[in-house]
Amino acid sequence: MKKLAIGIDIGGQSAKLGVVDRDGNVIETAVVTSIQPTVQEFVSDLARAVNNLREKTAHLGEMEGIGADAPNANCLNGSIEYAPNLTWGRDSDGQPTIIPLAELISRATGLRVTLTNDANAAALGEHTYGAAIGIDNFIMLTLGTGVGSGIIIDGKLVYGHDGFAGELGHVCAVPGGRPCNCGLYGCLETYASATGVARSARQALHESDKPSILRDIDEDRISSKDVYEAAKNGDATAIDVFRFTGKLLGKAMADFVKFSAPEAIVLFGGLTHARQFFHDDMVEAMNANLLKIWKNRIKILYSSLPESNAAILGASSLVW
Amino acid sequence: MKKLAIGIDIGGQSAKLGVVDRDGNVIETAVVTSIQPTVQEFVSDLARAVNNLREKTAHLGEMEGIGADAPNANCLNGSIEYAPNLTWGRDSDGQPTIIPLAELISRATGLRVTLTNDANAAALGEHTYGAAIGIDNFIMLTLGTGVGSGIIIDGKLVYGHDGFAGELGHVCAVPGGRPCNCGLYGCLETYASATGVARSARQALHESDKPSILRDIDEDRISSKDVYEAAKNGDATAIDVFRFTGKLLGKAMADFVKFSAPEAIVLFGGLTHARQFFHDDMVEAMNANLLKIWKNRIKILYSSLPESNAAILGASSLVW
Repeated sequence: MKKLAIGIDIGGQSAKLGVVDRDGNVIETAVVTSIQPTVQEFVSDLARAVNNLREKTAHLGEMEGIGADAPNANCLNGSIEYAPNLTWGRDSDGQPTIIPLAELISRATGLRVTLTNDANAAALGEHTYGAAIGIDNFIMLTLGTGVGSGIIIDGKLVYGHDGFAGELGHVCAVPGGRPCNCGLYGCLETYASATGVARSARQALHESDKPSILRDIDEDRISSKDVYEAAKNGDATAIDVFRFTGKLLGKAMADFVKFSAPEAIVLFGGLTHARQFFHDDMVEAMNANLLKIWKNRIKILYSSLPESNAAILGASSLVW
Repeated sequence: MKKLAIGIDIGGQSAKLGVVDRDGNVIETAVVTSIQPTVQEFVSDLARAVNNLREKTAHLGEMEGIGADAPNANCLNGSIEYAPNLTWGRDSDGQPTIIPLAELISRATGLRVTLTNDANAAALGEHTYGAAIGIDNFIMLTLGTGVGSGIIIDGKLVYGHDGFAGELGHVCAVPGGRPCNCGLYGCLETYASATGVARSARQALHESDKPSILRDIDEDRISSKDVYEAAKNGDATAIDVFRFTGKLLGKAMADFVKFSAPEAIVLFGGLTHARQFFHDDMVEAMNANLLKIWKNRIKILYSSLPESNAAILGASSLVW
């Protein structure tokens, strides 16, 4: 009988879940909201959706377990720790607290549950079903609203001493640079993310008088998508913003290579849609900042998972 | 019967070797030169010393094998690759080449041989006998002429895809900073090493007119030891140089933590003698640049191995 897994991608607004087979086919999906006031209500809604999916797919195979990703997940103990953006992740005083989420979901569903964060899940997803099949040493960078990372060494995710390894979005890319939500300055994610690109665009518009399509947009509302559209229309400012982003990202990637000597760096996330505008500068900057032993030897790969289901697939791969 | 290992620390001028027991006692040592013109001669001299040590210690226990460290060692295949500083590491045209050193030593001695670089050996040494016993996630930084590193994750050395993981001395500490021997600019080792401290001292003397004991020394000959002696004598310039070094090192260490979330960072090497002058600034800078989850939680340890035998111990720990 075929083996099946459930992947659950838990965000601040909703949880997407799906039944997946060993080959990465997403068989059946569902969505539940995740804005319940208490974790008991969230888990109860989630368990109902899980049971519903299991009933629908019971004839197709044997359910092996649940893999879930969530913000602020501690991969070592299956808990959510002090998540600022989860309504149900709080104590009775409304303060973010520690929630043993994997255990609660397991009790409610009767299935084994493994929990990790979304970038780690993305890395496992690429390793299991995607661009990194057969690559046992790579670094996954997710370039979305922020920059996340999952590090695979010898085929295994790196969790570190406390379960929080792989916070490469908060490595310093520009000493004394932009303030980051984390409280530090110059973090990679303040530049090489969707929000970072928008910030770079605003900065570029301020620093020059060059005409740009972007000047037609209310400055506070400029998004990375606007910058991408402008670049596609040949807007020089927008193109420069992506080139600047690529250079910073490539330089940071060179330093990541010096740590774990990966075979590849795998990129995923909304920003990669605009890769035609930053890829070459990124690769050039990376190689310019690598030791000779690595120059022109590190593969740059882009996620090959269908974007709509990538998070579910990534989470499900925890099960195998 | 007691188990014994031989540790060999191979440098450009000499190879130091010693018989070590499982508890890290160095029982018998020897030194051979390593400036032979061919690798055959070097290995032959080395094998003679190994056999001599084995004879002397045969009554004490059973010899398990040889662990060796050498510059430009590829830890995955036991070869030396393009070492610029080894006279015998060259082809018939005098160019640095690939030498299957582990295999050659093994054939000449009849013992199993494992080869790695010195920073990796140092990391294993601390894990086996020293400051990192029982610590399965840590980063070793060797602060000597250069800056080397060995990364332990889940109790195992990280080799990476190609065997060269852990080149943290060449992570960019200062964008566009000092030229490094490796061809890059601003590498950590151009600041946080013995030579880096000497460079910082020369720079400090140039940038100010403040009186300093260091002005009595021929500028080109100022060493990190001179700076250390001056600092001990209360010289403000020398003290500032170490504080500057500590700040840069601490900031770099914070970014290393974001990679592998280690329990500790272990420091070793000549520069650590001067730690009274940089430790506090280093720790403060590290914590100032860490995410909240890690602030004041990363242990800073100093090597606890006797310096004279640390390299032999480190190399020998490859055997166990």
